[in-house]
Amino acid sequence: MFTTTITPRFYETDAFGHINNTVITGWFETAREPIFRMFNPDMQIKNLPLILARIEVDFVGQIYYGQDITIQSFIVGHEAWQNNQCLARGKAVQVYFDFATQHSSRIPEQYREQLAQHIMSSP
Amino acid sequence: MFTTTITPRFYETDAFGHINNTVITGWFETAREPIFRMFNPDMQIKNLPLILARIEVDFVGQIYYGQDITIQSFIVGHEAWQNNQCLARGKAVQVYFDFATQHSSRIPEQYREQLAQHIMSSP
Amino acid sequence: MFTTTITPRFYETDAFGHINNTVITGWFETAREPIFRMFNPDMQIKNLPLILARIEVDFVGQIYYGQDITIQSFIVGHEAWQNNQCLARGKAVQVYFDFATQHSSRIPEQYREQLAQHIMSSP
Amino acid sequence: MFTTTITPRFYETDAFGHINNTVITGWFETAREPIFRMFNPDMQIKNLPLILARIEVDFVGQIYYGQDITIQSFIVGHEAWQNNQCLARGKAVQVYFDFATQHSSRIPEQYREQLAQHIMSSP
Repeated sequence: MFTTTITPRFYETDAFGHINNTVITGWFETAREPIFRMFNPDMQIKNLPLILARIEVDFVGQIYYGQDITIQSFIVGHEAWQNNQCLARGKAVQVYFDFATQHSSRIPEQYREQLAQHIMSSP
Repeated sequence: MFTTTITPRFYETDAFGHINNTVITGWFETAREPIFRMFNPDMQIKNLPLILARIEVDFVGQIYYGQDITIQSFIVGHEAWQNNQCLARGKAVQVYFDFATQHSSRIPEQYREQLAQHIMSSP
Repeated sequence: MFTTTITPRFYETDAFGHINNTVITGWFETAREPIFRMFNPDMQIKNLPLILARIEVDFVGQIYYGQDITIQSFIVGHEAWQNNQCLARGKAVQVYFDFATQHSSRIPEQYREQLAQHIMSSP
Repeated sequence: MFTTTITPRFYETDAFGHINNTVITGWFETAREPIFRMFNPDMQIKNLPLILARIEVDFVGQIYYGQDITIQSFIVGHEAWQNNQCLARGKAVQVYFDFATQHSSRIPEQYREQLAQHIMSSP
Protein backbone atom coordinates (compact mmCIF):
# COMPACT_ATOMS: atom_id res chain seq x y z
CA MET A 1 0.00 0.00 0.00
CA PHE A 2 1.17 3.52 -0.76
CA THR A 3 0.03 6.42 1.41
CA THR A 4 -0.12 10.03 0.18
CA THR A 5 -1.28 13.09 2.10
CA ILE A 6 -3.13 15.78 0.19
CA THR A 7 -4.03 19.18 1.60
CA PRO A 8 -7.24 20.25 -0.15
CA ARG A 9 -6.81 23.55 -1.96
CA PHE A 10 -9.42 26.26 -1.78
CA TYR A 11 -9.80 26.49 -5.55
CA GLU A 12 -10.70 22.78 -5.53
CA THR A 13 -13.99 23.50 -3.75
CA ASP A 14 -17.13 24.24 -5.76
CA ALA A 15 -20.34 26.20 -5.22
CA PHE A 16 -21.80 23.36 -3.15
CA GLY A 17 -19.08 24.18 -0.60
CA HIS A 18 -17.22 20.90 -0.86
CA ILE A 19 -14.38 19.55 -3.01
CA ASN A 20 -15.56 19.17 -6.60
CA ASN A 21 -15.75 15.63 -7.92
CA THR A 22 -13.47 16.36 -10.89
CA VAL A 23 -10.60 17.07 -8.49
CA ILE A 24 -10.44 13.53 -7.16
CA THR A 25 -9.00 11.98 -10.30
CA GLY A 26 -6.11 14.45 -10.04
CA TRP A 27 -5.48 13.55 -6.41
CA PHE A 28 -5.48 9.87 -7.31
CA GLU A 29 -3.04 10.49 -10.15
CA THR A 30 -0.81 12.28 -7.63
CA ALA A 31 -1.08 9.28 -5.32
CA ARG A 32 0.24 7.06 -8.12
CA GLU A 33 3.54 8.97 -8.22
CA PRO A 34 5.42 6.23 -6.31
CA ILE A 35 4.36 3.88 -9.10
CA PHE A 36 5.58 6.33 -11.74
CA ARG A 37 8.93 6.47 -9.94
CA MET A 38 9.13 2.68 -9.74
CA PHE A 39 8.84 2.39 -13.52
CA ASN A 40 10.88 5.47 -14.24
CA PRO A 41 13.37 6.14 -11.42
CA ASP A 42 14.99 9.22 -12.95
CA MET A 43 11.56 10.81 -13.54
CA GLN A 44 12.26 11.60 -17.20
CA ILE A 45 8.52 11.63 -17.45
CA LYS A 46 8.31 11.21 -21.20
CA ASN A 47 9.81 7.75 -20.84
CA LEU A 48 7.15 6.54 -18.42
CA PRO A 49 5.93 3.28 -19.95
CA LEU A 50 2.44 3.41 -18.43
CA ILE A 51 -0.79 4.37 -20.17
CA LEU A 52 -3.96 5.04 -18.25
CA ALA A 53 -6.72 2.91 -19.70
CA ARG A 54 -9.61 3.37 -17.29
CA ILE A 55 -10.64 5.10 -14.10
CA GLU A 56 -13.59 4.48 -11.82
CA VAL A 57 -14.47 6.60 -8.80
CA ASP A 58 -17.21 6.06 -6.23
CA PHE A 59 -18.15 9.17 -4.29
CA VAL A 60 -18.96 7.87 -0.85
CA GLY A 61 -19.20 11.12 1.12
CA GLN A 62 -18.56 14.86 0.99
CA ILE A 63 -14.94 16.02 1.20
CA TYR A 64 -14.39 19.46 2.72
CA TYR A 65 -11.67 22.07 2.63
CA GLY A 66 -9.70 22.64 5.83
CA GLN A 67 -8.40 19.20 6.77
CA ASP A 68 -5.84 16.92 5.21
CA ILE A 69 -6.78 13.88 3.18
CA THR A 70 -4.94 10.60 3.38
CA ILE A 71 -4.96 8.58 0.18
CA GLN A 72 -4.19 4.91 0.47
CA SER A 73 -3.30 3.35 -2.85
CA PHE A 74 -3.34 -0.34 -3.49
CA ILE A 75 -2.31 -1.81 -6.79
CA VAL A 76 -5.87 -1.80 -7.92
CA GLY A 77 -7.32 1.23 -6.27
CA HIS A 78 -7.32 4.38 -4.21
CA GLU A 79 -9.20 5.45 -1.11
CA ALA A 80 -9.46 9.04 0.15
CA TRP A 81 -9.84 9.34 3.93
CA GLN A 82 -10.65 12.46 5.96
CA ASN A 83 -11.50 12.35 9.69
CA ASN A 84 -11.33 8.57 9.74
CA GLN A 85 -13.94 8.22 7.02
CA CYS A 86 -13.40 6.87 3.55
CA LEU A 87 -15.02 9.51 1.32
CA ALA A 88 -13.97 8.48 -2.18
CA ARG A 89 -12.73 5.25 -3.60
CA GLY A 90 -11.36 4.69 -7.07
CA LYS A 91 -9.66 2.39 -9.46
CA ALA A 92 -7.11 3.21 -12.15
CA VAL A 93 -6.19 0.67 -14.76
CA GLN A 94 -2.72 1.30 -16.16
CA VAL A 95 -1.24 -0.54 -19.07
CA TYR A 96 2.46 -1.16 -19.68
CA PHE A 97 3.63 0.25 -22.98
CA ASP A 98 6.78 -1.06 -24.61
CA PHE A 99 8.42 1.79 -26.56
CA ALA A 100 10.59 -0.66 -28.51
CA THR A 101 7.68 -2.59 -29.98
CA GLN A 102 5.20 0.29 -29.76
CA HIS A 103 2.69 -2.03 -28.21
CA SER A 104 1.20 -2.68 -24.82
CA SER A 105 2.76 -5.68 -23.17
CA ARG A 106 2.78 -7.67 -19.94
CA ILE A 107 4.39 -5.80 -17.02
CA PRO A 108 8.00 -7.07 -16.84
CA GLU A 109 8.85 -9.38 -13.94
CA GLN A 110 11.13 -6.90 -12.16
CA TYR A 111 8.23 -4.48 -11.67
CA ARG A 112 5.76 -7.20 -10.80
CA GLU A 113 7.89 -8.08 -7.81
CA GLN A 114 8.06 -4.51 -6.55
CA LEU A 115 4.34 -4.02 -7.07
CA ALA A 116 3.57 -7.28 -5.32
CA GLN A 117 4.76 -5.76 -2.08
CA HIS A 118 1.90 -3.26 -2.23
CA ILE A 119 -0.89 -5.61 -3.14
CA MET A 120 -3.76 -5.61 -0.74
CA SER A 121 -7.32 -6.64 -1.11
CA SER A 122 -9.08 -4.21 -3.42
CA PRO A 123 -10.71 -1.32 -1.57
CA MET B 1 -28.78 12.55 -26.64
CA PHE B 2 -27.13 15.83 -25.66
CA THR B 3 -24.24 17.21 -27.68
CA THR B 4 -21.65 19.61 -26.29
CA THR B 5 -18.64 21.08 -28.08
CA ILE B 6 -15.47 21.61 -26.08
CA THR B 7 -12.42 23.48 -27.34
CA PRO B 8 -9.41 21.90 -25.61
CA ARG B 9 -7.43 24.46 -23.62
CA PHE B 10 -3.67 24.57 -23.73
CA TYR B 11 -3.32 24.27 -19.95
CA GLU B 12 -5.27 21.00 -20.19
CA THR B 13 -2.37 19.31 -21.99
CA ASP B 14 0.34 17.53 -20.01
CA ALA B 15 4.01 16.69 -20.52
CA PHE B 16 3.11 13.76 -22.77
CA GLY B 17 1.80 16.37 -25.22
CA HIS B 18 -1.85 15.34 -25.09
CA ILE B 19 -4.85 16.25 -22.95
CA ASN B 20 -4.35 14.97 -19.41
CA ASN B 21 -6.73 12.25 -18.27
CA THR B 22 -7.89 14.21 -15.22
CA VAL B 23 -9.40 16.85 -17.52
CA ILE B 24 -11.97 14.51 -19.02
CA THR B 25 -14.15 14.25 -15.92
CA GLY B 26 -14.47 18.04 -15.99
CA TRP B 27 -15.48 18.02 -19.65
CA PHE B 28 -18.07 15.35 -18.95
CA GLU B 29 -19.43 17.39 -16.01
CA THR B 30 -19.72 20.33 -18.40
CA ALA B 31 -21.59 18.13 -20.86
CA ARG B 32 -24.14 17.33 -18.15
CA GLU B 33 -25.16 20.98 -17.89
CA PRO B 34 -28.38 20.43 -19.89
CA ILE B 35 -29.34 17.88 -17.25
CA PHE B 36 -28.55 20.34 -14.46
CA ARG B 37 -30.80 22.87 -16.19
CA MET B 38 -33.58 20.32 -16.57
CA PHE B 39 -33.66 19.70 -12.80
CA ASN B 40 -32.98 23.29 -11.88
CA PRO B 41 -34.22 25.65 -14.60
CA ASP B 42 -33.27 28.91 -12.90
CA MET B 43 -29.71 27.63 -12.35
CA GLN B 44 -29.72 28.49 -8.63
CA ILE B 45 -27.05 25.88 -8.45
CA LYS B 46 -27.27 25.23 -4.72
CA ASN B 47 -30.76 23.85 -5.22
CA LEU B 48 -29.66 21.24 -7.73
CA PRO B 49 -31.11 17.98 -6.41
CA LEU B 50 -28.50 15.72 -8.00
CA ILE B 51 -25.57 14.04 -6.29
CA LEU B 52 -22.77 12.40 -8.23
CA ALA B 53 -22.32 8.89 -6.94
CA ARG B 54 -19.88 7.32 -9.38
CA ILE B 55 -17.86 8.01 -12.51
CA GLU B 56 -16.15 5.62 -14.88
CA VAL B 57 -13.97 6.66 -17.80
CA ASP B 58 -12.34 4.49 -20.44
CA PHE B 59 -9.45 6.16 -22.26
CA VAL B 60 -9.71 4.84 -25.78
CA GLY B 61 -7.24 7.09 -27.59
CA GLN B 62 -5.08 10.20 -27.23
CA ILE B 63 -6.84 13.57 -27.31
CA TYR B 64 -4.81 16.47 -28.65
CA TYR B 65 -4.91 20.23 -28.38
CA GLY B 66 -5.85 22.18 -31.50
CA GLN B 67 -9.17 20.69 -32.59
CA ASP B 68 -12.63 20.78 -31.09
CA ILE B 69 -14.13 17.86 -29.24
CA THR B 70 -17.75 16.81 -29.55
CA ILE B 71 -19.20 15.20 -26.47
CA GLN B 72 -22.30 13.13 -26.92
CA SER B 73 -24.09 12.46 -23.67
CA PHE B 74 -26.66 9.77 -23.22
CA ILE B 75 -28.51 9.28 -19.99
CA VAL B 76 -25.99 6.76 -18.89
CA GLY B 77 -22.80 7.95 -20.45
CA HIS B 78 -20.56 10.31 -22.33
CA GLU B 79 -18.38 9.93 -25.41
CA ALA B 80 -15.65 12.37 -26.50
CA TRP B 81 -15.09 12.52 -30.28
CA GLN B 82 -12.31 14.27 -32.18
CA ASN B 83 -11.69 13.79 -35.91
CA ASN B 84 -14.48 11.21 -36.14
CA GLN B 85 -12.91 9.01 -33.52
CA CYS B 86 -14.31 8.24 -30.10
CA LEU B 87 -11.34 8.87 -27.78
CA ALA B 88 -12.87 8.70 -24.32
CA ARG B 89 -16.04 7.19 -23.00
CA GLY B 90 -17.49 7.56 -19.54
CA LYS B 91 -20.37 6.98 -17.25
CA ALA B 92 -21.66 9.21 -14.46
CA VAL B 93 -24.15 7.92 -11.98
CA GLN B 94 -26.22 10.72 -10.50
CA VAL B 95 -28.63 10.28 -7.66
CA TYR B 96 -31.70 12.41 -7.01
CA PHE B 97 -31.62 14.05 -3.60
CA ASP B 98 -34.81 15.22 -1.97
CA PHE B 99 -34.05 18.31 0.15
CA ALA B 100 -37.36 17.96 2.02
CA THR B 101 -36.64 14.49 3.34
CA GLN B 102 -32.85 14.83 3.21
CA HIS B 103 -32.64 11.48 1.49
CA SER B 104 -31.97 10.16 -1.96
CA SER B 105 -35.15 9.20 -3.73
CA ARG B 106 -36.49 7.96 -7.05
CA ILE B 107 -36.26 10.57 -9.84
CA PRO B 108 -39.74 12.20 -10.01
CA GLU B 109 -41.92 11.32 -12.97
CA GLN B 110 -41.77 14.77 -14.58
CA TYR B 111 -37.99 14.48 -15.03
CA ARG B 112 -38.13 10.85 -16.08
CA GLU B 113 -40.21 11.88 -19.06
CA GLN B 114 -37.80 14.59 -20.15
CA LEU B 115 -34.82 12.30 -19.69
CA ALA B 116 -36.51 9.54 -21.63
CA GLN B 117 -36.24 11.65 -24.76
CA HIS B 118 -32.47 11.42 -24.54
CA ILE B 119 -32.15 7.72 -23.80
CA MET B 120 -30.05 5.82 -26.26
CA SER B 121 -28.24 2.59 -25.94
CA SER B 122 -25.34 3.00 -23.54
CA PRO B 123 -22.09 3.97 -25.27
CA MET C 1 -9.16 42.88 -30.83
CA PHE C 2 -9.84 39.16 -30.46
CA THR C 3 -13.11 37.95 -28.95
CA THR C 4 -13.53 34.56 -27.27
CA THR C 5 -16.64 33.15 -25.63
CA ILE C 6 -16.21 31.00 -22.55
CA THR C 7 -18.99 29.00 -20.91
CA PRO C 8 -18.14 28.83 -17.20
CA ARG C 9 -17.84 25.25 -15.99
CA PHE C 10 -19.37 24.12 -12.73
CA TYR C 11 -16.07 22.78 -11.38
CA GLU C 12 -14.62 26.28 -11.87
CA THR C 13 -16.83 27.65 -9.07
CA ASP C 14 -15.58 27.64 -5.48
CA ALA C 15 -17.17 27.51 -2.03
CA PHE C 16 -17.99 31.23 -2.20
CA GLY C 17 -20.41 30.30 -5.01
CA HIS C 18 -18.63 32.19 -7.78
CA ILE C 19 -15.88 31.40 -10.28
CA ASN C 20 -12.57 30.96 -8.45
CA ASN C 21 -9.90 33.54 -9.19
CA THR C 22 -7.33 30.95 -10.26
CA VAL C 23 -9.55 30.00 -13.20
CA ILE C 24 -9.27 33.37 -14.91
CA THR C 25 -5.65 32.98 -15.97
CA GLY C 26 -6.66 29.77 -17.79
CA TRP C 27 -9.52 31.55 -19.56
CA PHE C 28 -7.16 34.32 -20.63
CA GLU C 29 -4.63 31.78 -21.92
CA THR C 30 -7.49 30.24 -23.94
CA ALA C 31 -8.34 33.66 -25.31
CA ARG C 32 -4.77 34.00 -26.58
CA GLU C 33 -5.20 31.00 -28.88
CA PRO C 34 -5.62 33.18 -32.00
CA ILE C 35 -2.20 34.62 -31.18
CA PHE C 36 -0.72 31.14 -30.77
CA ARG C 37 -2.14 30.25 -34.20
CA MET C 38 -0.72 33.41 -35.74
CA PHE C 39 2.82 32.48 -34.64
CA ASN C 40 2.35 28.77 -35.26
CA PRO C 41 -0.26 28.16 -37.96
CA ASP C 42 -0.05 24.37 -37.98
CA MET C 43 -0.49 24.26 -34.20
CA GLN C 44 2.55 22.04 -33.64
CA ILE C 45 2.45 23.49 -30.19
CA LYS C 46 6.02 22.62 -29.22
CA ASN C 47 7.26 25.01 -31.88
CA LEU C 48 5.36 27.97 -30.48
CA PRO C 49 8.00 30.69 -30.13
CA LEU C 50 6.27 32.56 -27.31
CA ILE C 51 7.17 32.52 -23.63
CA LEU C 52 4.88 33.93 -20.98
CA ALA C 53 6.84 36.36 -18.87
CA ARG C 54 4.23 38.02 -16.69
CA ILE C 55 0.53 38.10 -15.94
CA GLU C 56 -1.53 40.65 -14.04
CA VAL C 57 -5.22 40.28 -13.25
CA ASP C 58 -7.56 42.77 -11.60
CA PHE C 59 -10.69 41.23 -10.16
CA VAL C 60 -13.33 43.85 -10.72
CA GLY C 61 -16.50 41.91 -9.86
CA GLN C 62 -17.89 38.45 -9.10
CA ILE C 63 -18.25 36.05 -12.04
CA TYR C 64 -21.01 33.46 -11.71
CA TYR C 65 -21.78 30.11 -13.24
CA GLY C 66 -24.75 29.93 -15.61
CA GLN C 67 -24.05 32.60 -18.21
CA ASP C 68 -21.47 32.91 -20.94
CA ILE C 69 -18.44 35.14 -20.66
CA THR C 70 -17.08 37.21 -23.51
CA ILE C 71 -13.35 37.79 -23.39
CA GLN C 72 -12.01 40.65 -25.42
CA SER C 73 -8.28 40.45 -25.95
CA PHE C 74 -6.14 43.32 -27.04
CA ILE C 75 -2.47 42.97 -27.66
CA VAL C 76 -1.73 44.02 -24.17
CA GLY C 77 -4.63 42.71 -22.21
CA HIS C 78 -7.81 40.78 -21.64
CA GLU C 79 -11.23 41.73 -20.31
CA ALA C 80 -13.91 39.26 -19.14
CA TRP C 81 -17.48 40.48 -19.63
CA GLN C 82 -20.69 38.93 -18.33
CA ASN C 83 -24.08 40.66 -18.49
CA ASN C 84 -22.52 43.78 -19.99
CA GLN C 85 -20.15 44.22 -17.08
CA CYS C 86 -16.39 43.92 -17.18
CA LEU C 87 -15.62 41.60 -14.25
CA ALA C 88 -11.96 40.80 -14.69
CA ARG C 89 -9.21 42.51 -16.57
CA GLY C 90 -5.71 41.19 -17.16
CA LYS C 91 -2.45 41.60 -18.91
CA ALA C 92 -0.13 38.90 -20.25
CA VAL C 93 3.35 39.73 -21.34
CA GLN C 94 4.64 37.27 -23.92
CA VAL C 95 8.17 37.19 -25.17
CA TYR C 96 9.27 35.96 -28.58
CA PHE C 97 11.79 33.12 -28.33
CA ASP C 98 14.07 32.32 -31.21
CA PHE C 99 14.79 28.57 -31.24
CA ALA C 100 17.76 29.04 -33.57
CA THR C 101 19.64 31.36 -31.25
CA GLN C 102 18.03 30.04 -28.07
CA HIS C 103 17.39 33.60 -26.99
CA SER C 104 14.48 35.94 -26.71
CA SER C 105 14.37 38.39 -29.55
CA ARG C 106 12.28 41.16 -31.06
CA ILE C 107 8.99 39.97 -32.57
CA PRO C 108 9.67 39.60 -36.33
CA GLU C 109 8.10 42.17 -38.63
CA GLN C 110 5.65 39.76 -40.27
CA TYR C 111 3.95 39.11 -36.92
CA ARG C 112 4.10 42.73 -35.84
CA GLU C 113 1.93 43.63 -38.82
CA GLN C 114 -0.68 41.01 -38.04
CA LEU C 115 -0.72 41.97 -34.39
CA ALA C 116 -1.02 45.62 -35.24
CA GLN C 117 -4.49 44.99 -36.60
CA HIS C 118 -5.64 44.02 -33.11
CA ILE C 119 -4.06 46.83 -31.17
CA MET C 120 -6.47 48.89 -29.18
CA SER C 121 -5.98 51.12 -26.22
CA SER C 122 -5.02 48.98 -23.24
CA PRO C 123 -8.02 47.87 -21.16
CA MET D 1 7.18 35.04 6.12
CA PHE D 2 5.05 31.94 5.56
CA THR D 3 6.58 28.88 3.91
CA THR D 4 4.53 26.26 2.07
CA THR D 5 5.79 23.16 0.29
CA ILE D 6 4.04 22.09 -2.89
CA THR D 7 4.66 18.82 -4.70
CA PRO D 8 4.01 19.50 -8.40
CA ARG D 9 1.31 17.21 -9.78
CA PHE D 10 1.68 15.51 -13.12
CA TYR D 11 -1.58 16.93 -14.46
CA GLU D 12 -0.18 20.41 -13.78
CA THR D 13 2.42 19.98 -16.54
CA ASP D 14 1.61 21.03 -20.10
CA ALA D 15 2.74 20.02 -23.58
CA PHE D 16 5.91 22.09 -23.23
CA GLY D 17 6.93 19.59 -20.54
CA HIS D 18 6.92 22.03 -17.63
CA ILE D 19 4.35 23.26 -15.12
CA ASN D 20 1.72 25.35 -16.90
CA ASN D 21 1.62 29.02 -15.97
CA THR D 22 -2.05 28.93 -14.99
CA VAL D 23 -1.20 26.53 -12.14
CA ILE D 24 0.91 29.05 -10.27
CA THR D 25 -1.97 31.26 -9.14
CA GLY D 26 -3.51 28.17 -7.52
CA TRP D 27 -0.28 27.34 -5.72
CA PHE D 28 -0.03 30.90 -4.47
CA GLU D 29 -3.65 30.79 -3.24
CA THR D 30 -2.74 27.60 -1.38
CA ALA D 31 0.25 29.37 0.15
CA ARG D 32 -2.09 32.05 1.53
CA GLU D 33 -3.94 29.50 3.66
CA PRO D 34 -2.17 30.60 6.87
CA ILE D 35 -3.59 34.06 6.19
CA PHE D 36 -7.08 32.62 5.63
CA ARG D 37 -6.76 30.84 9.01
CA MET D 38 -5.60 34.01 10.72
CA PHE D 39 -8.74 35.87 9.64
CA ASN D 40 -11.02 32.89 10.06
CA PRO D 41 -9.64 30.49 12.68
CA ASP D 42 -12.46 27.95 12.52
CA MET D 43 -12.13 27.74 8.72
CA GLN D 44 -15.86 28.33 8.12
CA ILE D 45 -14.69 29.46 4.75
CA LYS D 46 -17.81 31.39 3.80
CA ASN D 47 -17.09 33.83 6.59
CA LEU D 48 -13.62 34.68 5.31
CA PRO D 49 -13.59 38.48 5.16
CA LEU D 50 -10.98 38.74 2.41
CA ILE D 51 -11.57 39.53 -1.26
CA LEU D 52 -8.90 39.06 -3.88
CA ALA D 53 -8.53 42.27 -5.82
CA ARG D 54 -5.47 41.71 -7.97
CA ILE D 55 -2.75 39.22 -8.80
CA GLU D 56 0.54 39.69 -10.59
CA VAL D 57 2.94 36.89 -11.48
CA ASP D 58 6.38 37.10 -13.05
CA PHE D 59 7.57 33.88 -14.65
CA VAL D 60 11.29 33.88 -14.00
CA GLY D 61 12.19 30.32 -15.01
CA GLN D 62 10.75 26.94 -15.97
CA ILE D 63 9.25 24.82 -13.19
CA TYR D 64 9.43 21.06 -13.70
CA TYR D 65 7.61 18.05 -12.35
CA GLY D 66 9.54 15.72 -10.05
CA GLN D 67 10.85 17.97 -7.29
CA ASP D 68 9.17 19.85 -4.50
CA ILE D 69 8.58 23.57 -4.61
CA THR D 70 8.99 25.85 -1.63
CA ILE D 71 6.75 28.89 -1.65
CA GLN D 72 7.75 31.75 0.57
CA SER D 73 4.95 34.19 1.15
CA PHE D 74 5.44 37.68 2.43
CA ILE D 75 2.58 39.98 3.12
CA VAL D 76 2.87 41.44 -0.32
CA GLY D 77 4.05 38.56 -2.40
CA HIS D 78 4.95 35.00 -3.13
CA GLU D 79 8.07 33.33 -4.48
CA ALA D 80 8.27 29.77 -5.83
CA TRP D 81 11.67 28.11 -5.36
CA GLN D 82 12.89 24.81 -6.80
CA ASN D 83 16.55 23.67 -6.59
CA ASN D 84 17.58 26.92 -4.92
CA GLN D 85 16.26 29.03 -7.77
CA CYS D 86 13.36 31.43 -7.61
CA LEU D 87 11.24 30.48 -10.64
CA ALA D 88 8.05 32.46 -10.15
CA ARG D 89 7.26 35.51 -8.12
CA GLY D 90 3.83 36.97 -7.53
CA LYS D 91 1.75 39.47 -5.69
CA ALA D 92 -1.82 39.09 -4.43
CA VAL D 93 -3.74 42.09 -3.24
CA GLN D 94 -6.44 41.11 -0.77
CA VAL D 95 -9.04 43.48 0.55
CA TYR D 96 -10.78 43.20 3.91
CA PHE D 97 -14.54 42.95 3.55
CA ASP D 98 -16.79 43.87 6.46
CA PHE D 99 -19.93 41.71 6.29
CA ALA D 100 -21.78 43.99 8.71
CA THR D 101 -21.46 47.09 6.55
CA GLN D 102 -21.14 45.18 3.25
CA HIS D 103 -18.16 47.31 2.34
CA SER D 104 -14.44 46.94 2.13
CA SER D 105 -12.71 48.45 5.11
CA ARG D 106 -9.31 48.88 6.72
CA ILE D 107 -7.86 45.64 8.10
CA PRO D 108 -8.68 45.65 11.87
CA GLU D 109 -5.81 46.27 14.27
CA GLN D 110 -5.79 42.73 15.71
CA TYR D 111 -4.95 41.27 12.30
CA ARG D 112 -2.48 44.00 11.43
CA GLU D 113 -0.41 42.96 14.41
CA GLN D 114 -0.34 39.30 13.44
CA LEU D 115 0.46 40.16 9.85
CA ALA D 116 3.22 42.51 10.91
CA GLN D 117 5.20 39.55 12.16
CA HIS D 118 5.43 38.25 8.61
CA ILE D 119 6.31 41.48 6.86
CA MET D 120 9.49 41.35 4.88
CA SER D 121 10.73 43.44 2.08
CA SER D 122 8.67 42.75 -1.02
CA PRO D 123 10.10 39.93 -3.18
